[in-house]
Amino acid sequence: MESYNERVVLAARPIGEPKLSDFRHERVPRPEPRDGEVLVQVISLSIDPYMRGRMNEVKSYAPHVKLGEVMVGGTVGRVLVSRDDRFSAGEFVVGYGGWQEFATLPADGLRKLDPALAPIQTALGSLGMPGMTAYVGLRNIGRPKPGETLVVGAASGAVGSMVGQLAKLSGCRVVGIAGGQAKCDYVQNELGFDDALDHLEPGLDQRLATACPDGVDVYFENVGGTLWDAVFPLLNDFARIPVCGLVASYNATKPQAGPDRTPQLFRAILVRHLTVRGFIVWDFADQETEFLAEVGALLEAGKIKYREDVVDGLQNAPQALIGLLSGRNFGKQLVRVHRDQQ
Amino acid sequence: MESYNERVVLAARPIGEPKLSDFRHERVPRPEPRDGEVLVQVISLSIDPYMRGRMNEVKSYAPHVKLGEVMVGGTVGRVLVSRDDRFSAGEFVVGYGGWQEFATLPADGLRKLDPALAPIQTALGSLGMPGMTAYVGLRNIGRPKPGETLVVGAASGAVGSMVGQLAKLSGCRVVGIAGGQAKCDYVQNELGFDDALDHLEPGLDQRLATACPDGVDVYFENVGGTLWDAVFPLLNDFARIPVCGLVASYNATKPQAGPDRTPQLFRAILVRHLTVRGFIVWDFADQETEFLAEVGALLEAGKIKYREDVVDGLQNAPQALIGLLSGRNFGKQLVRVHRDQQ
Repeated sequence: MESYNERVVLAARPIGEPKLSDFRHERVPRPEPRDGEVLVQVISLSIDPYMRGRMNEVKSYAPHVKLGEVMVGGTVGRVLVSRDDRFSAGEFVVGYGGWQEFATLPADGLRKLDPALAPIQTALGSLGMPGMTAYVGLRNIGRPKPGETLVVGAASGAVGSMVGQLAKLSGCRVVGIAGGQAKCDYVQNELGFDDALDHLEPGLDQRLATACPDGVDVYFENVGGTLWDAVFPLLNDFARIPVCGLVASYNATKPQAGPDRTPQLFRAILVRHLTVRGFIVWDFADQETEFLAEVGALLEAGKIKYREDVVDGLQNAPQALIGLLSGRNFGKQLVRVHRDQQ
Repeated sequence: MESYNERVVLAARPIGEPKLSDFRHERVPRPEPRDGEVLVQVISLSIDPYMRGRMNEVKSYAPHVKLGEVMVGGTVGRVLVSRDDRFSAGEFVVGYGGWQEFATLPADGLRKLDPALAPIQTALGSLGMPGMTAYVGLRNIGRPKPGETLVVGAASGAVGSMVGQLAKLSGCRVVGIAGGQAKCDYVQNELGFDDALDHLEPGLDQRLATACPDGVDVYFENVGGTLWDAVFPLLNDFARIPVCGLVASYNATKPQAGPDRTPQLFRAILVRHLTVRGFIVWDFADQETEFLAEVGALLEAGKIKYREDVVDGLQNAPQALIGLLSGRNFGKQLVRVHRDQQ
């Protein structure tokens, strides 16, 4: 066992798109767990859009990362040393270990993983925060009904792919939007969406209208920007818009040109009886057990598929986040920090 | 009994604020009820903000009024002739009789009123559509909890006054916004709101922030415009915004100057976990019985107060609507069409 810990800390607050120089790689002594803590060797680090918000100093979902602090992130790993009765060395756990090789974590925030049930890294994707975001957003806000039309962006990504597949299982017509033909082919042919539209091609508004002849009943908003503009005119009376992310604008630095369309939006909310509701997965933390049971069973039965985009080595994590924020990943973005055989 | 019917029809579609010339007074033969219909002599006509939307040709809540058609409106009246077993001559009923002295109405859309329980015109206010709008908006969307802060505009009006009083009964701190000192005094001293702010005085943003030291948990949106701007920065995490009207913008003709604040709104919806939901009272039509029982009892017990602004004569209905849209009414706006003794 090494006695050092490689980690990535926030070096500077990005303005617009993060640069590699906004991150700093450090080598520090490996931490020691205290009572009630567990020392975890990180195997996989999850890269997610919310991380961009944590790099800002303004209020976001949660406290921001301080300058010089380890970047926040969900991880799966192996227990090396446990100072809590509930965990033993050798077990696999999921938690928020951050961008580092080794993390001491409070046992209270960890969940044990059984590698016989599902590949452990699914605890960062389909069976983790992104999958549960899709599940609770649909169950509590989107409420898709058979015969309705659902639209979701970033459709080949961790959240979008799950939203579309769960909505298909609910009997919806599902239209996904993604960047590039390869992603669209995957969404339509592998995931079974009814249609998939490439937002990098011109004429999205018209193509979306054609793909949604009966309008849109649920728009699962995880992108914002021009996707919202395309969906907005198609929203049916009583449409529901769960808002879990706005990745298209996370790097935005300038206010958007006028006119101010807020009054138009409120008018639509009123006249079309729309529900727009922002949430994060932990607003529905009490539904985790049901989520794991239901989606775990669907995954095991092959009714839910997923795709991972894995980069090797913690040193590549900053580039992976930069790529994710501009849509260069294809599937759930992971960083392999340690091989789990070692 | 006269054999004529005075009525007010839509003469022209208004651009911006309605003008008197957008309405036309007519004298036509009194209609005859068919099987299943009732001939009603209108006693009181309700004047409500939604009427402005019905004068436009664009989609609103409901079909627009056609040119030359009688203006739509809720009415209480007395049955003169009944061709339906459920109603008899002399009974009082509430329904959508429109801007006219006599209306033939399908019996299915009528509800009988007992003048011993409450003054019959309350069926157009506290115990009618405006009161039920407040009730269902709070019960289903606003969900006020004890200790929370609720803000409502048009606070001396039919909806706003009920919203605030019901929220007070739920244990909220309630701040009302109204136009002019007299209305503010009424809201605070008669209706018992915790605070009342005059939006005609300068510095509303700052005064509202001072009046809501713990932020805003429920904003019952029936006004829009600058009121929304003042409330927006104060919205707490998990705030709920039932949207039942936007009276400040009903006469708007021009798009609003930029920048476009839609991205800012979506960001707030996401980061502050807001719920914004548009509704009309009939979305919750199945709660009418409970509404009448609960609010009827509160009214009888003197726990809910109301104020009426009554103008005499159908010929004054157009001016009453024009006044309502610019906030010149003080309390529930009614037009007395016939005295109920006659």
